[in-house]
Amino acid sequence: MTLQELLDIELPIIQAPMAGVQGSALAIAVSEAGGLGSLPCAMLGTDALLEALTTLQAHTRKSINLNFFCHTPPPQQPEREAAWRKLLAPYYEQYGIDPQALPAGPQRRPFSHEVADVLEAFQPPVLSFHFGLPDKALLARVKSWGSKMIASATTVEEALWLEAAGIDAIIAQGLEAGGHRGHFLSDDINLQMGIFALLPQIVKAVKLPVIAAGGIVDARGVTAAMALGAAGVQAGTAYLLCPESTTSALHRAALKSNGACHTALTNVFSGRPARGIVNRAIRELGPINHSAPAFPLASAAITPLRTAAEKQNNGGFSPLWCGQNASGCKEVSAAELTLSLAAGLHL
Amino acid sequence: MTLQELLDIELPIIQAPMAGVQGSALAIAVSEAGGLGSLPCAMLGTDALLEALTTLQAHTRKSINLNFFCHTPPPQQPEREAAWRKLLAPYYEQYGIDPQALPAGPQRRPFSHEVADVLEAFQPPVLSFHFGLPDKALLARVKSWGSKMIASATTVEEALWLEAAGIDAIIAQGLEAGGHRGHFLSDDINLQMGIFALLPQIVKAVKLPVIAAGGIVDARGVTAAMALGAAGVQAGTAYLLCPESTTSALHRAALKSNGACHTALTNVFSGRPARGIVNRAIRELGPINHSAPAFPLASAAITPLRTAAEKQNNGGFSPLWCGQNASGCKEVSAAELTLSLAAGLHL
Repeated sequence: MTLQELLDIELPIIQAPMAGVQGSALAIAVSEAGGLGSLPCAMLGTDALLEALTTLQAHTRKSINLNFFCHTPPPQQPEREAAWRKLLAPYYEQYGIDPQALPAGPQRRPFSHEVADVLEAFQPPVLSFHFGLPDKALLARVKSWGSKMIASATTVEEALWLEAAGIDAIIAQGLEAGGHRGHFLSDDINLQMGIFALLPQIVKAVKLPVIAAGGIVDARGVTAAMALGAAGVQAGTAYLLCPESTTSALHRAALKSNGACHTALTNVFSGRPARGIVNRAIRELGPINHSAPAFPLASAAITPLRTAAEKQNNGGFSPLWCGQNASGCKEVSAAELTLSLAAGLHL
Repeated sequence: MTLQELLDIELPIIQAPMAGVQGSALAIAVSEAGGLGSLPCAMLGTDALLEALTTLQAHTRKSINLNFFCHTPPPQQPEREAAWRKLLAPYYEQYGIDPQALPAGPQRRPFSHEVADVLEAFQPPVLSFHFGLPDKALLARVKSWGSKMIASATTVEEALWLEAAGIDAIIAQGLEAGGHRGHFLSDDINLQMGIFALLPQIVKAVKLPVIAAGGIVDARGVTAAMALGAAGVQAGTAYLLCPESTTSALHRAALKSNGACHTALTNVFSGRPARGIVNRAIRELGPINHSAPAFPLASAAITPLRTAAEKQNNGGFSPLWCGQNASGCKEVSAAELTLSLAAGLHL
C-alpha cells in the first residue's frame, strides 16, 4: 500500500505540525492542495481542541493529521527551577519583570484519555506522535476508531521500537529538522543523525513506509529523499513564510535574514533540545544548559522575557524554530508550496 | 566543464582520503576503476611522501588526489598538556605506561614549501585541502604546475571563502562524514549541517562544481546527492572494509558491529572534532573534552594507550573513524565498490 493510500491523500507531502506558528488554516490549505496538513495539538486544552476540530470539519473533508506529544511530565523540580530563575534574574531585571509573579508558561500536555474523549466523536483519520507513543491502552483506543498512526524516530532503534508497537508509518527525523527533536529511547544527542544517513538505515530496517523529515525544502529535496527510499516527505520550515502560517513578524524577519544560516539545538526554551535560529537566549544561556528545568517546565520562566522583548520588537528570547535550510522559505500560498514540493516526485 | 573533465577522471566518484586506514593501494584501485583515488599525505614526512608518489607513478597513469591539511600548528601548551596527562594518568597506570616517557604521537603537518618541493617534480594533477587552504604564495606555486585544487567547506561561508581564493571545486562536508571535520572559519560545532541541508545551499551560493561528502555509501546515496545539485560525490566510510584498505582488524570488527550505529564527534584523539565509533576513550573522556590539547597535539598523549590496548585486542583507545552510515561498508574490491556507487549516477 502506498503512503497515499494509507493516509487517504493524493500527494505524499506532509506539512509538519508546528506549534506556535500555525493553526488550522495552514493544515486546511495543505490538505485541500492534496498533501497532508497537520494540526499541532500539544498546546491545546480540550476546549481549544474541540473548537479546532470543529473548524477543520467545517472547512475540509480531506485527511488532516492531528499531532500530539507523548512525554512523561516530570516531577516539579523546585531546586533546579530556583537555579534556573537565578540565572535568568539579570534579564528579568532588564525587562522589569517581577520574578515572584511569573505566570505559568505555555502548557504542553501529553496525549491522554481526556484528549481521546474529545477525539472520539471525530474519529480522526491520521494522528501523529512525537517523543514516543502513548501507552498501550490509549493506543488501542485510537486504533479502534481506525485512525492511522505515524510517529517520529531519530534512530534505527526507535524506528524498530515504533514498528513493534504497531503504528502505520514512521517519520525519520533528521537532525536538520527545526523545532523539537523527537528522540525518546535515549537523550544522547550524539545519536542524532543527518537525514542522509538516518533515512536509508531506517528504510532498510523496517517494513513500514518511511517519511523523510529534516532539511527538505524544495522539489530537489523531495527527489533526493525518494531516491533514499522515502515513501513521502514531511516539510516544516519551508511553510513558515506562507500567509496561512501564523509565524510572527519577528520570526519571519529572522527566517529571511542571514542569521537563519546559524541554528542550534537548544533546550533553553522548553527543556528539550529543539532547533532554532541562534539569538540572545541561545547565545547567552545555551545552546544546551544543564540547569534548564526538564521538558516542558523550562518554558514557564523564559516566556515572560519573550513577551517583554517582543513588545520591544526584539526576538532575543523567542524560540525562532527553524531547520538547517531556510533557503526554501517562500512567501507563497501553502497550496503553491505543496505543489512545488510535489513536483520533485516526478523529476 | 564537468567535474570529470576538470579532474581528468571517468566517474565523478572520489574516494575520501583517510589517514591511518589506507595507503597508495586503495587510491590506485579507485583511480584505475575510473574514479578519483586519494592519498592522505598529512602524516607523511617528505621522504615517505616521495616514496608514495613514486609508487603511485609506477602503478597508475590515472589522476590521483593528494590530500593535505592546512592547520596552523598551535604553540606548545605545557599547562593544558599537563592537565590532559593527569586526566589520562589512571589509564596509563592500567596499561603500565610510564607517563614520563611518552613517545611523540603521530605527526600531522600542514602543507608547506618543503612538501611543495617534493611535489614539484611530480606536478600532481589534483590536490585537496582540509582545514582551509595554504597561504597565497604556496597556493600560487601549486597553481603554477597546473594542479587542480579542491577543498572542504562545512558552511556556506566557507564555500564562498574557498571560491574567492581561486580553487577549482568544493567538497561540501556534511556532518554525517567520518573523520575530521574540515571547518576553518569558526569552531562553533552548531554551524555544522547535515549534507541534505548543506549541499543545496552551497550549490546555490557558488559557481564552482560541488562534491557531496558525508553519509553517501551506495548508489541511492549518489542519486540523491546528484538530485541535490552535486557534481560528484566523495565517499570514505564505504571503502573501509575493502581489501585494499589497511583498516585494522579491530576497526573492521567495530564497523561490522551494531556499535557502528553510535558515532560521535570527538576531540580526544587529535584535539579537533572528528567522527568515530563511540568507544571507551570517547565515553569516558569525551566526546568533546575542553582539556584536550589543540590539534594535532592531543594525539601524543593518547597514542601509547591505543598501542597498549590494541596489543590486548582492545579498541577502547583507537580512533575508529566512521561516518553516520556504516551500513554501506562491504567486503568487496575498491573497484567493485566504485562502480556500484557510480551506478547511482544513472538511476
